[in-house]
Amino acid sequence: MASEKEVSNGVEWRIKIADGSSERLVPEANPASRLLLGLKSFVVGLALKVWKFLQKAWDLGVDDPRKVIHCLKVGMALTVVSLFYYMRPLYEGFGKNAAMWAIMTVVVVFENCVGATVYKSLNRVCGTFLAGFLGLGAHSVASQSGQRFEPIIVGASVFLLASAATFSRFIPSVKARFDYGAMIFILTFSLVSVSGYRVDELFEMAHHRISTIIIGTSLCIIISMLVCPIWAGQELYTLITRNMDKLTTSLDGCVEEYFKDSGSVVESNKECHKKLQGYKCVLISKAAEESMANFARWEPGHGPFNFRHPWQQYLKIGSSMRSCAYCLEALNGCINSENQAPEYIKKHLNNSSLKVSSNSSSVIRELAITIKTMKKSSNIHSLVGEMNSAVQELQNDLKSLPKLFNPPSMPEADTPENKKIEPISRTMVKMPLMEIVPLLTLASLLIEIATRISGIVDAVGELENLAEFKHASNDKC
Amino acid sequence: MASEKEVSNGVEWRIKIADGSSERLVPEANPASRLLLGLKSFVVGLALKVWKFLQKAWDLGVDDPRKVIHCLKVGMALTVVSLFYYMRPLYEGFGKNAAMWAIMTVVVVFENCVGATVYKSLNRVCGTFLAGFLGLGAHSVASQSGQRFEPIIVGASVFLLASAATFSRFIPSVKARFDYGAMIFILTFSLVSVSGYRVDELFEMAHHRISTIIIGTSLCIIISMLVCPIWAGQELYTLITRNMDKLTTSLDGCVEEYFKDSGSVVESNKECHKKLQGYKCVLISKAAEESMANFARWEPGHGPFNFRHPWQQYLKIGSSMRSCAYCLEALNGCINSENQAPEYIKKHLNNSSLKVSSNSSSVIRELAITIKTMKKSSNIHSLVGEMNSAVQELQNDLKSLPKLFNPPSMPEADTPENKKIEPISRTMVKMPLMEIVPLLTLASLLIEIATRISGIVDAVGELENLAEFKHASNDKC
Repeated sequence: MASEKEVSNGVEWRIKIADGSSERLVPEANPASRLLLGLKSFVVGLALKVWKFLQKAWDLGVDDPRKVIHCLKVGMALTVVSLFYYMRPLYEGFGKNAAMWAIMTVVVVFENCVGATVYKSLNRVCGTFLAGFLGLGAHSVASQSGQRFEPIIVGASVFLLASAATFSRFIPSVKARFDYGAMIFILTFSLVSVSGYRVDELFEMAHHRISTIIIGTSLCIIISMLVCPIWAGQELYTLITRNMDKLTTSLDGCVEEYFKDSGSVVESNKECHKKLQGYKCVLISKAAEESMANFARWEPGHGPFNFRHPWQQYLKIGSSMRSCAYCLEALNGCINSENQAPEYIKKHLNNSSLKVSSNSSSVIRELAITIKTMKKSSNIHSLVGEMNSAVQELQNDLKSLPKLFNPPSMPEADTPENKKIEPISRTMVKMPLMEIVPLLTLASLLIEIATRISGIVDAVGELENLAEFKHASNDKC
Repeated sequence: MASEKEVSNGVEWRIKIADGSSERLVPEANPASRLLLGLKSFVVGLALKVWKFLQKAWDLGVDDPRKVIHCLKVGMALTVVSLFYYMRPLYEGFGKNAAMWAIMTVVVVFENCVGATVYKSLNRVCGTFLAGFLGLGAHSVASQSGQRFEPIIVGASVFLLASAATFSRFIPSVKARFDYGAMIFILTFSLVSVSGYRVDELFEMAHHRISTIIIGTSLCIIISMLVCPIWAGQELYTLITRNMDKLTTSLDGCVEEYFKDSGSVVESNKECHKKLQGYKCVLISKAAEESMANFARWEPGHGPFNFRHPWQQYLKIGSSMRSCAYCLEALNGCINSENQAPEYIKKHLNNSSLKVSSNSSSVIRELAITIKTMKKSSNIHSLVGEMNSAVQELQNDLKSLPKLFNPPSMPEADTPENKKIEPISRTMVKMPLMEIVPLLTLASLLIEIATRISGIVDAVGELENLAEFKHASNDKC
């Protein structure tokens, strides 16, 4: 009956709609079959969505198999700790809640990179220990002060310490190192001071809890270090050097692209475009760099890095690279401008511009090699010198640019040998300033980029000193 | 005796050191008094450090009192929930662990802004519910399959689901919305399936746990919404509009600074410098914007914003603002270049450059007003038109720049009335191109900035449509 009524209502409603709008797109159909059709399309749509999602997940896994390995590691750690507590004898020894704390520790502490796992582990252990100690004190004071004052003392101590610890999480230096520890502190302190147990019961509990937490964290640290470890420091280092490579590719590519003859063979356009956009990775990697540097300081020595490797210096290098990338971004905008300089003027600056960009790239590439090999470069100074002389040459070419338009005032052809300037008609005395503005901007931004590269050179030099890189030449001897 | 021995050891050691290094900077002193001195300086140093830390914390609190309020809110929520479970009757009704889960929920879920609290609360409740359901299933299947297969089934199910859930946290769309939920899912599933309880015990436990979690999350949501709420959406909106203001101040300031007569009154330099650097906030606010937009979508309607306010669009506006800021950064570099154009050439472009920058700023300011008032601007089109015509004027001025150096070829003074060019000596025929390159770069970057501002205009226009802003003029009528 009910369904019949609904159906008839549905028909009525449809008819009303049809009357109201006086147009009907769907031909008359049985409501039941329409429902079926809708359901079918819904199911198909859902299946498609799920399929797409799974495909995306698959691509993600194929793209970075280390993510899959991390998941298997988490699964392994959890299974180990679960089965460890599943065995009855241990289980009864540690009390019913012990398993819970071990599992919770593994779930919460196990992170993608070693540094983050160590950071959370140490924070968890220290936070629990400190808060447990203070909580026991608060609890015993409260329980000795009589039925009436007990809740007041407990409430006041929880309120004060929780507020203070929460506030400390806003302080940048605390946030960077002890954010998680502060949270655990609040949690443990509240739990211990509020719990209705007797003090001697609490001692036993605290003993169990600390030991389970230590077992859980040790397991996490061991697994994350031994099974295909992902080191935050190594990641940071890879990110910085890869960004340097991207920066050079983009810089070279942009300038070449601009000076390229329109007649030359066009590269596979999409790939080329992707290459040119590499500098955008530099623009957006600030947050990633910072979090990696934060975690890296918790890591023990690994690979070529000591325990106290100056990770913070990589942030400086990253930020000086970003300041270059800003200019490159502006340069890219100017290159795509509508106004384009005439070919013969472009040709005048062609060689020196390309030289500046290629020399700048060489400097960055050398810096990347310095970081990669962790050896002081012997020829960075000469490369910087070459870059500066290329800048000087570009400036000279800029100075001589007006001569292109004032041939009568300088009859003698005093241009350098390697720059052949086509004979320009004598009628051409007015400079097409508007058209050459993008070209001049390019030159000026190239010069600015070269200046900013000195910033990267300085930052890498500081890293060399802080991390005590050896001379590359020493090894060759 | 022991202390005597230590002292004599200390003396021996000191003498050895003194012999080895054969130099002694500190005059002979009693070891005990030296120890005291060292201790004193250590204590003083520590006290100074603590004092500085406290001062920094105080400044932080004074700077943003809302942080202090947040801390008090957390303290309040924790105290309420603690005392709630401290009352014996409730306490025994819910079981000994109930208090723990409520406290844990409050500590973990209570975040600075409402959106984050709601996000974590919903994720926690849904994750616990789903995982509890699946865990009960796994647990009952395992317990029915006999002593031998039980650990295998439990281990395998924990391994599979924990790995899968961990992997899902890497998928960007899941990470943005359900990261915390996935963690809670792993935690609850492991706890339930591993626990040694009977299934009927588990049902009761699940009931208690879900109810305590719901009580805890509701308390958090209520307190965070009712007591001085901090809305992520409001924060995002404030950040975007404040960044717009900073962008205009920097843009105006930079160009004015460049064209300023060296004789004019110098503003309080530090403050002025700070103003000019405002665009740097735009450069670095990407991460903050993204996290706020992520949280904002969990928030109910508040103030002028609906539940489904298009927060993602603010990210687009932010990114188009950043693309302007990149140019501004490059411009700032060029302005500080060593080469400076002669005054009379600067004067030629002075008016039109200032016009472009001030018109560009007006456009951004109008956009900021549009967002602030949430009303469609009636004169944004005319402002964009003015900006474009200012750009055109600047381009014309650039075109006419060569005339400054070729007075003989154009005897008639066909310059616009509003630009008075000083009479230039006839000897000046060669263009000082090198010196005017920064000026030309400035002009070119200004034009580029104006182009990119169109991007902001488009993004704000999209926001107007998506959020269905009303016309400002409608209200005035």
